[in-house]
Amino acid sequence: MEEIDIGIVLLQLFVLFLLAKVAGLLCERVGISSVIGEIFAGIIVGNTILFQWLSLDLDISLFEILSELGVIFLLFAVGLETPFSELRKVGKTATTVAILGVVVPLISGFALIMALGHTQTEALFIAAAMVATSVGITARVIKDMNLTQTIESRVIIGAAVIDDVLGMIVLAIVVGVASGSGTGILDIALVASEGILFVLMVIFIGSFLLPKARKKIEARRESNGTCVKKEKKGISPLPLAIVVCLGLSVVADYVGLAAIIGAFLAGMAFAEFKDKWPCEEDFHPINAFLVPFFFLYVGLSVDVASFGDVLVLAILVTVLAVATKYIGCGLGARKLGGKSATIIGVGMVPRGEVGIIVASIGLSMAVISDSMFSVVVFMSMATTIIAPFLLTWAFKRKLGDGPCDGERTD
Amino acid sequence: MEEIDIGIVLLQLFVLFLLAKVAGLLCERVGISSVIGEIFAGIIVGNTILFQWLSLDLDISLFEILSELGVIFLLFAVGLETPFSELRKVGKTATTVAILGVVVPLISGFALIMALGHTQTEALFIAAAMVATSVGITARVIKDMNLTQTIESRVIIGAAVIDDVLGMIVLAIVVGVASGSGTGILDIALVASEGILFVLMVIFIGSFLLPKARKKIEARRESNGTCVKKEKKGISPLPLAIVVCLGLSVVADYVGLAAIIGAFLAGMAFAEFKDKWPCEEDFHPINAFLVPFFFLYVGLSVDVASFGDVLVLAILVTVLAVATKYIGCGLGARKLGGKSATIIGVGMVPRGEVGIIVASIGLSMAVISDSMFSVVVFMSMATTIIAPFLLTWAFKRKLGDGPCDGERTD
Repeated sequence: MEEIDIGIVLLQLFVLFLLAKVAGLLCERVGISSVIGEIFAGIIVGNTILFQWLSLDLDISLFEILSELGVIFLLFAVGLETPFSELRKVGKTATTVAILGVVVPLISGFALIMALGHTQTEALFIAAAMVATSVGITARVIKDMNLTQTIESRVIIGAAVIDDVLGMIVLAIVVGVASGSGTGILDIALVASEGILFVLMVIFIGSFLLPKARKKIEARRESNGTCVKKEKKGISPLPLAIVVCLGLSVVADYVGLAAIIGAFLAGMAFAEFKDKWPCEEDFHPINAFLVPFFFLYVGLSVDVASFGDVLVLAILVTVLAVATKYIGCGLGARKLGGKSATIIGVGMVPRGEVGIIVASIGLSMAVISDSMFSVVVFMSMATTIIAPFLLTWAFKRKLGDGPCDGERTD
Repeated sequence: MEEIDIGIVLLQLFVLFLLAKVAGLLCERVGISSVIGEIFAGIIVGNTILFQWLSLDLDISLFEILSELGVIFLLFAVGLETPFSELRKVGKTATTVAILGVVVPLISGFALIMALGHTQTEALFIAAAMVATSVGITARVIKDMNLTQTIESRVIIGAAVIDDVLGMIVLAIVVGVASGSGTGILDIALVASEGILFVLMVIFIGSFLLPKARKKIEARRESNGTCVKKEKKGISPLPLAIVVCLGLSVVADYVGLAAIIGAFLAGMAFAEFKDKWPCEEDFHPINAFLVPFFFLYVGLSVDVASFGDVLVLAILVTVLAVATKYIGCGLGARKLGGKSATIIGVGMVPRGEVGIIVASIGLSMAVISDSMFSVVVFMSMATTIIAPFLLTWAFKRKLGDGPCDGERTD
């Protein structure tokens, strides 16, 4: 039982939270995602005298917990926006866009890092970090331009849903392979299929079987004439959501996967019960408090001094990340015509938080180096900053042809 | 930089949160405050093999942070319900009830513990823990009985507002005296007045000067015809509230007071800006997640084995806590007639979380012993459980006379 000085910890929390929010606000004012600002605040604290002044080296493990809780609740919230029932509604084009948008960056990224002489595990993690699209930034740009009803917008959002699930499966495979002791092809195939199996099983039970069972029970109750109002004083949604979220995170960690995979799947399952247990609104304030600590922690983990050595690699990875996502997704959407395919390819470019989360798991498992972590953070931040400009340009190029095209529906 | 196993911490968080919520739910079902259930869950974990099984002795400092954040945000929320402008509206009767309800338990409690041969600091802390009323339980009983419009109800709520502020001043004095090195009367008077000065100064600036300045600025703006809508995209309230809350907590801790005093005062100040920066709703989900960890932590700190030795003392303190609050508040309300005075006296009895918070500060300062901490927890839990029964009885006794009496207003 270690003694801690609560006063110092409170001071640290205060200064870090304040810096993160101020930096986030400044970024928002100039039209950049506040996440970028929060990471920058962490980089500044981690690479200046502030770090010693705040005596952060003493209690950094406390921030690890806050940051871990932040990222778990963040992924739960992402899962809440990815209900299984939506998954089936997504069209063929969006599915093709998502699959090609995952496969092309994954293979290219893996090939590049292996070619540069890194370990197979490291290459897998970097490749996995290049996979997951963070579509929040794109969604905001589309909303700001009043283009949510266009076909491009709907394909992007649909593809993002599939992309999230595929990203979790890729992460499950990569974490499984990294923690598995085997090196033979058969061993890798085994742990990889374990990861896939876990994800699919939880989706099957939580997002398919349980909602179905619930509908059956409710139908029976109604036909029996049982008063539904009896349930009114039921369990309140938020504690239940937290219990399920933490519970599945623990299970995911226990079976050798990342805790956030469990949190994401828990959110997906909960999305099917939104009408009965609404809890989306409740997670906003919790995440407003906890999530900045994750991005601060990411920034703290970036070593600017060692970054000079990997700057070229970072730029290379960023270019590859942009190009492969653009090519993969564009290919998937080629049927919609060149200009629409460009919009969709560009819209899927931002990696944002998800790429960073994947890399941070690799860092905590000590299978990727500090400098490779910095590379991924650079790539994620760069793609997030570039994407809105590219997207605005691509939309304007298309709408220039004839404004009615933008209103076309599937 | 200590290494922690996130997987184990998540498991601990999951089990503790689940137990706390289940126990809280069970208590609510039988009509007892869920806080009691959460403390019980902590007592069970802390005094059984579960403690070793969860390896809590390894990482308990992590829960200290969550519990400290929980209690800070809890007191901020209490402060939010105590706007300074309300304070001035409270009538003479309520003010007398509050003052006598603080003075009588404080003096009697101090005298009892000193008479039993404990140190002066310990006696001060126990007495301070006997002061603060936790009126939430009373408010719920009154609401359930549909009696919120009665004069007794309004005096109780009004007195509770004053009681909160007086409780913070008493706590400021006690913490000041306990951390001050001096033992002479002059030294004690000095640190005590420092505490009072801090509380009054923050109330003056945060809850009086700032709201006044704001009104002036707004009035000037309106007369200048400046568009008020310009402000629309201002700062969002929750991050600002968290920054102010943490900031004042740090300041309170820095000047040698308890962090929660700062949090409470921050909440009070924010209450004046509710129309501009509403954040009450946002603190509900944050507190639903964090506050159980405080009560769990309280339960974990209760040593059942050593409790046998102090059981008699615990009962004695509980009886004194009930009697002195009843006598003090009843005296303050004697003008309203015997039966109304009984209702008010009984309604102010529950100590709930605030008594426990005071004692936990004493425990963390190592000025009260583990067994005295258990005594306070027992007293707080017992008064909270007893109060609803006494209150229902007192109201029924009065309403039996003539139901119209209950509707009388000041």
